[in-house]
Amino acid sequence: MSLQLHDHGRLRHLLTLEGLPREVLCGLLDRAQQLSGHAQDPTRVRELLAGTAVCTLFFEPSTRTRSSFQLAATRLGADVLAFDASTSSTSKGETAIDTLKNIEAMGVRGFVVRHQLDGAVAVLAEAADAGTALVNAGDGRSAHPTQGLLDMLTIRQAKGGDFAALKVVIVGDIRHSRVARSDLHALRTLGCVDIRACGPRSLLPADDTLQGCTVFDDLDAALDGVDVVMMLRLQRERMQEGLISSIDDYHRDYGLTVERLRRATPDAVVLHPGPMNRGVEIDDAVADGPQSLILRQVANGVAVRMAVLEALLA
Amino acid sequence: MSLQLHDHGRLRHLLTLEGLPREVLCGLLDRAQQLSGHAQDPTRVRELLAGTAVCTLFFEPSTRTRSSFQLAATRLGADVLAFDASTSSTSKGETAIDTLKNIEAMGVRGFVVRHQLDGAVAVLAEAADAGTALVNAGDGRSAHPTQGLLDMLTIRQAKGGDFAALKVVIVGDIRHSRVARSDLHALRTLGCVDIRACGPRSLLPADDTLQGCTVFDDLDAALDGVDVVMMLRLQRERMQEGLISSIDDYHRDYGLTVERLRRATPDAVVLHPGPMNRGVEIDDAVADGPQSLILRQVANGVAVRMAVLEALLA
Amino acid sequence: MSLQLHDHGRLRHLLTLEGLPREVLCGLLDRAQQLSGHAQDPTRVRELLAGTAVCTLFFEPSTRTRSSFQLAATRLGADVLAFDASTSSTSKGETAIDTLKNIEAMGVRGFVVRHQLDGAVAVLAEAADAGTALVNAGDGRSAHPTQGLLDMLTIRQAKGGDFAALKVVIVGDIRHSRVARSDLHALRTLGCVDIRACGPRSLLPADDTLQGCTVFDDLDAALDGVDVVMMLRLQRERMQEGLISSIDDYHRDYGLTVERLRRATPDAVVLHPGPMNRGVEIDDAVADGPQSLILRQVANGVAVRMAVLEALLA
Repeated sequence: MSLQLHDHGRLRHLLTLEGLPREVLCGLLDRAQQLSGHAQDPTRVRELLAGTAVCTLFFEPSTRTRSSFQLAATRLGADVLAFDASTSSTSKGETAIDTLKNIEAMGVRGFVVRHQLDGAVAVLAEAADAGTALVNAGDGRSAHPTQGLLDMLTIRQAKGGDFAALKVVIVGDIRHSRVARSDLHALRTLGCVDIRACGPRSLLPADDTLQGCTVFDDLDAALDGVDVVMMLRLQRERMQEGLISSIDDYHRDYGLTVERLRRATPDAVVLHPGPMNRGVEIDDAVADGPQSLILRQVANGVAVRMAVLEALLA
Repeated sequence: MSLQLHDHGRLRHLLTLEGLPREVLCGLLDRAQQLSGHAQDPTRVRELLAGTAVCTLFFEPSTRTRSSFQLAATRLGADVLAFDASTSSTSKGETAIDTLKNIEAMGVRGFVVRHQLDGAVAVLAEAADAGTALVNAGDGRSAHPTQGLLDMLTIRQAKGGDFAALKVVIVGDIRHSRVARSDLHALRTLGCVDIRACGPRSLLPADDTLQGCTVFDDLDAALDGVDVVMMLRLQRERMQEGLISSIDDYHRDYGLTVERLRRATPDAVVLHPGPMNRGVEIDDAVADGPQSLILRQVANGVAVRMAVLEALLA
Repeated sequence: MSLQLHDHGRLRHLLTLEGLPREVLCGLLDRAQQLSGHAQDPTRVRELLAGTAVCTLFFEPSTRTRSSFQLAATRLGADVLAFDASTSSTSKGETAIDTLKNIEAMGVRGFVVRHQLDGAVAVLAEAADAGTALVNAGDGRSAHPTQGLLDMLTIRQAKGGDFAALKVVIVGDIRHSRVARSDLHALRTLGCVDIRACGPRSLLPADDTLQGCTVFDDLDAALDGVDVVMMLRLQRERMQEGLISSIDDYHRDYGLTVERLRRATPDAVVLHPGPMNRGVEIDDAVADGPQSLILRQVANGVAVRMAVLEALLA
């Protein structure tokens, strides 16, 4: 934890939401809220990181997340270097640390890093110079903190800031999901107590990820009276791996339909981190329906990433 | 059609030149002409789209067209996001519409879209928000409107604006060519009446694309007295598909040589959309000769794309 | 040579350091030195190439070198177009010259070119318009002039400008190395007389590359009393090609260890162009040790590339 906070409590890296102090987390949400509206003069915002170079260093490709960070950094006036480490020197046998240290030596101060291995971004953060800041844009199954933040911002906009009063269900492949883990970290920090987890046993984590959550394998029961439904993407590989019997069965048991959603409160909201498998974990009528906040999540993603980059680099 | 024009006649999207009102088309050419010279102060031009984000969303790769749009948007001061949809979420099963809606939610207002399917860009335009504008950068065999515009600008610079007085021949694989279709749309709108089409039967369209054109299968006859020769690229796949017997035969029958070009008027001009297959559809001596406007087309491409992006987004 | 200098001696292209006048070379080093520190106001530096478009045109991929040039151009205020020619029109049969002429026609004035063939960048420079400048970012085994310059700047910072007093050894696969060739060109121009070359016979050049150098096949002997050790990367392909017996043997005979480095002067410095094969040509303790200037080289790379782009385009 001390790796991501300066002694005086300011953010140094953003690696995980686990253990991140509530005031730091809420500070980021507040700032993202300001940046998401029209209250801020875009020209002034564009001076915040003018002349600062930010590198999106992706060891695992993700066009969407990379684009969101690129737009966030650009709006703050930063220069953005896209470094696709999955096809570069790293594949020539260079270590990830050497790649980082090299780009750092070129004068880049901020790194947005995605890596397929749990904990890889923290290892890189340890190797970084004092003036360098890293944002974890997803590592293994561990964490995807800006996704967690944007989900919280989206919930807060819809439901207000009293998380203790909210019933939230997370549905799907929680076992392999860094999104779910970051959401759980944030929900706990914000005081949410009724957190439900739902999915087939084979896709639920064996470790203590779900500590304090109520676990359901029946989706109808899990949805009963909830305020927030957080759907997860089902990777089709899970079928090849034998973790689910078929896509059709998965949809029958865990797909969110309009009918099922009626079990939640009438003004319940639906989130999904994207990209969606329409007709698998979520039906069109829900994805495009009045309770869906899915595109709002995407919009909030840029604002949250601006707030994070500003906190780290401005 | 109404999809690409606002009620008051202003351009909303640029999807096709088919049916685009003559005054809109000429307005774009006039503005491109202004932007192509040194009359405009580059610093002032760079303010036209300052703070606006434009995404090049290519479902089919094309480095060249993407670069031309990127330079055009950059010169107008826009932020450019290159989104290679052929290797991104779309390949993870996300629909093209969801990809568009996502990037739109990130605050991007302009989209330059290439897609391998006819009509795909119009489908995306229908799904877009009111404040979003799309430019078709090539869809299937249907349309490539900015190529049509840049060809018209190039002809107009060389031959003046009286298209009714011009004899124009289009040579090659018209059947598979979106360039040819956009050229035909524009030539008709601009009043050109002597339009000739030439190519082997197997590469001529079976539909009504060539309505009103004079069709030739003999290139010498087709070139007789023309003012403008528009050559098309021959995709080498056409041989595998059995549509032409051999590259050598194609060159013998439809390759533009200096000798053949003498059948046109002495000051006839030669266009080619690139990339060229030198020695196949066009000889070096023609491509690099005094009648070639091929690089002028490329230069005009940036100016035309600036004019289009400005019309849609400024 | 005249290809890269204007009649009045100013730089027109940077293709090779071979034969580049000493005053031009030192002028670039002096300017890079200024740009590498904090003496220059970044806002003013960013005006030097404002509105100028620079294209990184890589026919052979290299994320690292491309990134260094991109950051250099961006800091000078240029617009950067990354054109990956290894996956573009060139692969559709377009010649490299046509690709260059096309991007030039789009209004790009500076080109940073990497190509797998010796002399390819010079051929492109001959085809370029009068107002266009090319930088060779590596062609075949011939030259990588900005790497040579950044190596010289790094040596000069550590050892002062009296190259005649320095003992320098280059170790490794000199035969296939454009880095070694550019280093040799620069060292000779700067007056270095004690230049040593060391590597297995199979990896030493058969031509006159090493003229005037003392050739060693024993690394211990070669290191004796040197001031500067320039290590080269070993491509693992050399084993498949039968040029070395095994990676282990190579490391045993030519890997730089702390123990071996003791044969050099106590304040000898170690350079490596990267990416490193740790444990092959260089040990961790050397790469990360107090005598290593490897990250300083990377930092100097950006400054040198800024100086070169400014000299060519400002």
